[in-house]
Amino acid sequence: MSDSLFTEAINGDRRALARAMTRIDDGASGVLDAVAGLEPRRATTPGAPFVLGVTGPPGAGKSTFTNRLIARARANGERVAVLAVDPSSPFSGGAILGDRLRMEAHASDPGVFIRSLSSRGHLGGLSRATGQVVDLLDASGFDRIILETVGVGQSELSVMGLADTVLVVLTPESGDVVQTMKAGLLEVADVFAVNKADRPGADGLRRNLELMVHLGMPEGAGDGHWTIPVHTCCALEDQGVDEVASACTAHLDWIRSDGRLAWDERRADGRMRAFLDVVASDARMRAETAVRDSGLRDRIRAGSVNAYAAAAEWGTSS
Amino acid sequence: MSDSLFTEAINGDRRALARAMTRIDDGASGVLDAVAGLEPRRATTPGAPFVLGVTGPPGAGKSTFTNRLIARARANGERVAVLAVDPSSPFSGGAILGDRLRMEAHASDPGVFIRSLSSRGHLGGLSRATGQVVDLLDASGFDRIILETVGVGQSELSVMGLADTVLVVLTPESGDVVQTMKAGLLEVADVFAVNKADRPGADGLRRNLELMVHLGMPEGAGDGHWTIPVHTCCALEDQGVDEVASACTAHLDWIRSDGRLAWDERRADGRMRAFLDVVASDARMRAETAVRDSGLRDRIRAGSVNAYAAAAEWGTSS
Repeated sequence: MSDSLFTEAINGDRRALARAMTRIDDGASGVLDAVAGLEPRRATTPGAPFVLGVTGPPGAGKSTFTNRLIARARANGERVAVLAVDPSSPFSGGAILGDRLRMEAHASDPGVFIRSLSSRGHLGGLSRATGQVVDLLDASGFDRIILETVGVGQSELSVMGLADTVLVVLTPESGDVVQTMKAGLLEVADVFAVNKADRPGADGLRRNLELMVHLGMPEGAGDGHWTIPVHTCCALEDQGVDEVASACTAHLDWIRSDGRLAWDERRADGRMRAFLDVVASDARMRAETAVRDSGLRDRIRAGSVNAYAAAAEWGTSS
Repeated sequence: MSDSLFTEAINGDRRALARAMTRIDDGASGVLDAVAGLEPRRATTPGAPFVLGVTGPPGAGKSTFTNRLIARARANGERVAVLAVDPSSPFSGGAILGDRLRMEAHASDPGVFIRSLSSRGHLGGLSRATGQVVDLLDASGFDRIILETVGVGQSELSVMGLADTVLVVLTPESGDVVQTMKAGLLEVADVFAVNKADRPGADGLRRNLELMVHLGMPEGAGDGHWTIPVHTCCALEDQGVDEVASACTAHLDWIRSDGRLAWDERRADGRMRAFLDVVASDARMRAETAVRDSGLRDRIRAGSVNAYAAAAEWGTSS
């Protein structure tokens, strides 16, 4: 990336920002250096910008929710960026017409920047690419960054480690509590929203989630502890969304006060994960480039050396 | 892993096999060496064993389909192993009672071995762990290995690179063709099944999938080319399943004849990906261990050095 493109992007040029993000998404090498030079505010200050993760199974209504949250943030005068890492997101192009139109209403608003990130082509490096884009958005002065990822898949869920607050959106159809737990959604959730609450099973799911949250609480957890709230709502009809939005804000308030140590710990874990992501994807890229015209590549492809032996051979020669 | 556990596993001791798989899933280091010493048949011979990938969005009915396919394979006298890498799979424990009972019917059959693999805890290494388990099942003499993964998420989809034939199960509710394409499902599909075909939209989805398959075919593709078939079915009522099963067998016949070069190419790509997975996850594990008690770890966690600078520092010191 040329220095000027990068400078224009963080100085508020939308087209430059979009192009810079495409370069990151494509894994263009120059971008790494430019973004690596940033000192993101979010690295040290909770909620600056407020990075809100929205995740859950496909069809849970995450994008409808995101639209509602954009509208509320805009009403507060916040500049909002939405980053969709979700093939089922209308922001990524898989929209029914109604969603598209709602999204486009925001897209014409200069205070809203919406972009999708491909979740393919980043083998093992999705959270790295997303982290770089979030750093760039941070440097570009957005007040709120909404990260929408599909809540299935390890790479997609690990992206939630970048968020200050994670909203998990479920529906009665998206499965029971056991599935939610096995998918790893309980581990990332700060707030649960049971969407499409007019459908059968919504109240049962809410009760079971509350029970699960209660069971997951440490013994003797007291006043300073965050209890994951569970709200029912209908995002499409804009019912119950205010309560969910307030719960997210309450979590932000918590990480700025009693939850500061927990946030620091999460941030520290995230930094370690980001470091390991960089190490792993650097090693992958280095190996891929280095073996390109080598006899080792031919032997690997022909199966005359297995992956482990090949890695050992490459490890001793590199 | 002790040599004896490994030997018992490949000699047909079920409990030893289950324990060996748990060790692989846990990333126990000794296992790597034992499995790395195997010469899997599937590496060089299409369909030996027949590794069938079953993928698609949560709720598409993949597990019901898998159950139907187990029953047919057992009727042919095949020994079947099922490996579920899918938090929403009843094989992984997220079952409604009916599914569980059907599954347990097979579980008491000594010709069927069912195991789930956690998709968490393998950051960037899911396909590596799955590949090792498939190698172990291969060595243990199963005729058919069914790999069930949720068709959302890059790591989960890349697991499909291990399969000879990939069946993508969709439903009218699971989204339109654009979403299927964006999720990367078209790229991995050898056979499409539109399940729950009694629901509205099934025929439209089938037609659009056929159109998409047609558009994706290379110019002038002729007799030796594989055209991805699209079938409608109701796995729950066991309707149309035979046609889907036949289509999977036809694809196996194809990779053994006209499609042999395409299969070789896919296998070669898979071997290269496996090599890069091993390189990346080795680098990650090495870095994680090496920095454990170092000042670098403290500086990374405190944010006084960013991920890129830390990786560069680690790279020059390692």
